[in-house]
Amino acid sequence: MNKTEIPDSFPSNPNEVFSLAIDGMGGDGAPEVVVAGLAVAAERHRGIKVLLIGDEASLRPLLTKYPKAAAICTVWHTDVSISMDMKPTSALRLRQSSMRLAMDAVAGGRAQGVVSAGNSGAMLALAKIVIKTMPGISRPAMAAISPTIKGDVVMLDLGANVACDSRNLVEFAVMGEAFAKSVLGLPAPTIGLLNIGSEELKGDEKLRVAAETLRESPLGAQFHGFVEGHDITAGTTDVVVTDGFTGNVALKTGEGVLKMATTLLRRVFQNGIVAKIGYLLVRPGLERMKEWLDPRRYNGAVFVGLNGVVVKSHGGTDAEGFAAAVDVAMDMVTHGFNDSIRDRLSHMGALVSRQQVVEGREPAASAS
Amino acid sequence: MNKTEIPDSFPSNPNEVFSLAIDGMGGDGAPEVVVAGLAVAAERHRGIKVLLIGDEASLRPLLTKYPKAAAICTVWHTDVSISMDMKPTSALRLRQSSMRLAMDAVAGGRAQGVVSAGNSGAMLALAKIVIKTMPGISRPAMAAISPTIKGDVVMLDLGANVACDSRNLVEFAVMGEAFAKSVLGLPAPTIGLLNIGSEELKGDEKLRVAAETLRESPLGAQFHGFVEGHDITAGTTDVVVTDGFTGNVALKTGEGVLKMATTLLRRVFQNGIVAKIGYLLVRPGLERMKEWLDPRRYNGAVFVGLNGVVVKSHGGTDAEGFAAAVDVAMDMVTHGFNDSIRDRLSHMGALVSRQQVVEGREPAASAS
Repeated sequence: MNKTEIPDSFPSNPNEVFSLAIDGMGGDGAPEVVVAGLAVAAERHRGIKVLLIGDEASLRPLLTKYPKAAAICTVWHTDVSISMDMKPTSALRLRQSSMRLAMDAVAGGRAQGVVSAGNSGAMLALAKIVIKTMPGISRPAMAAISPTIKGDVVMLDLGANVACDSRNLVEFAVMGEAFAKSVLGLPAPTIGLLNIGSEELKGDEKLRVAAETLRESPLGAQFHGFVEGHDITAGTTDVVVTDGFTGNVALKTGEGVLKMATTLLRRVFQNGIVAKIGYLLVRPGLERMKEWLDPRRYNGAVFVGLNGVVVKSHGGTDAEGFAAAVDVAMDMVTHGFNDSIRDRLSHMGALVSRQQVVEGREPAASAS
Repeated sequence: MNKTEIPDSFPSNPNEVFSLAIDGMGGDGAPEVVVAGLAVAAERHRGIKVLLIGDEASLRPLLTKYPKAAAICTVWHTDVSISMDMKPTSALRLRQSSMRLAMDAVAGGRAQGVVSAGNSGAMLALAKIVIKTMPGISRPAMAAISPTIKGDVVMLDLGANVACDSRNLVEFAVMGEAFAKSVLGLPAPTIGLLNIGSEELKGDEKLRVAAETLRESPLGAQFHGFVEGHDITAGTTDVVVTDGFTGNVALKTGEGVLKMATTLLRRVFQNGIVAKIGYLLVRPGLERMKEWLDPRRYNGAVFVGLNGVVVKSHGGTDAEGFAAAVDVAMDMVTHGFNDSIRDRLSHMGALVSRQQVVEGREPAASAS
């Protein structure tokens, strides 16, 4: 891999490699949430070395306030940052932004991964241009972990690609399997391809071809076949593969349903003194349930298929959530997520290139 | 509309028009669930006249057991029925099946609508061939009602069409609006087009074109624009329009999440004696919540865009659920659902045909 040129302002000796480069200025609560999150992460990850990038004048007082974060951070100053509503095309022009410098650090081999709670569109665009797509992968995808009734499930793509062809889906399966291995610690994760059940609809050609390819591939034994929407939370498979449009809708629909259930439940518990007493009696169990479903436990959507670990924290997260995103990044760095994909690809390669590629919706965009 | 030839076995004088033709043999619990459901429906719908189609030897004893159902039913005997796992192509060959005769009755003008809990693939295929697509509509869709935090939402397509183009989406909006009017009783339902949020993905061309067409149409004032997955249960709009693949996944994902939440909640309440007492105290509220989310309340997916009212009950439903499907069908018959679509189409026609049709995924299938 060609090393990217690192700006002269890089605050360290050229041989030092940081565990993570962190965008100090990304997210609604930045920079405080980021620094507070790093203080939490410092206790969980022994030996972690963080390159913290952002406005030094804002970051220094926070590092004084959170000494545990200060102990693991080296600050790289820049006063440029990407706002949450900036268009990716504008963001790409800011060569000194905190997010861009974090990517530069990874591309230049000075950090193993990047975490940002900033603008996702900008982040995906920058990652593709700076860190670049991994050889053998046609398009990066966005993956995340969600709770199920049995354990956790890895789902991808969650929105990086509206249009996917059969080859993309096969690659998503490879990346999702590697992700479930390194982050969930599963030795042989099972994989499902999201489809719909009705008889008359089983004809989606790209899904059929992708399923056939997976079945004949080295992943064949782990490939469960088609799954439906309700299988996601049933934990039918450890990995659920779909196109970015469907994945994004499924993820957000699920979040919406959970929010509706929570709101209705709150009304039940607040409805009169008897219900309030009932609430107090079941509260310990409810707290455990809440913890299980806590979106912060799953904070950290990951861009997979790049030459480096790239984790996107939710923009509106708190310190605990940011620390969870750091956990995901560290798991990927420590357990050799990208090596695992490369290894698998070396055995899949012939199959994937031999298969007939069947395009999905919006074929024109597939070529981009 | 040309009248379909009705088989000689038709048990009534040719001028009698039934409210509904009911497939007595469709569904896991048929025929008893069907007859028991009709007994419930008989109390709710004054003057309802049902043509009940199926095996007379099985139906007669049930009508004796449920005299309220007997009071509204005329039996049309056939000993042919379509099994739940029969392929649509095989089902189409059975010209004397109970489902087919129910469709014949509607197509021949002897019944205003049909309800079946049978095989959905067969039902859609038969409806298209026998009852036929309404003039001005390119493809029928599957719609249903779901609960939200505020009220109910109509969602379509739920699986009749994997591949949708911009014109299909506009037509779904027209049909969804008419459905929300006749079944939810809303005077001017609002409409949302399901999309995903990320900046880089707003380029789905068929969604953009459909949105533009709706904005300029007579439905413009009711068109809210794009909505995301979480908006479905937030009740952001009264109607949510999407393609059949995404809609099916969203519906089933939502059902799965609700099931997960219910299972976790049950564990909370069963965890020790204190929690069990707590459960007893909040039970009345939980029962109301359960009732609100009860899938039986929403039983009845509707095939819209046909020359007649066609309601599909869930195959595994009980009598209460079957009665809810009958409610939906009766609402559509009584409130002139199809007239409402025809009226709207007469004002939309020029717009829809003028627009550039942008195809979605699987363009080949769009032509079928």
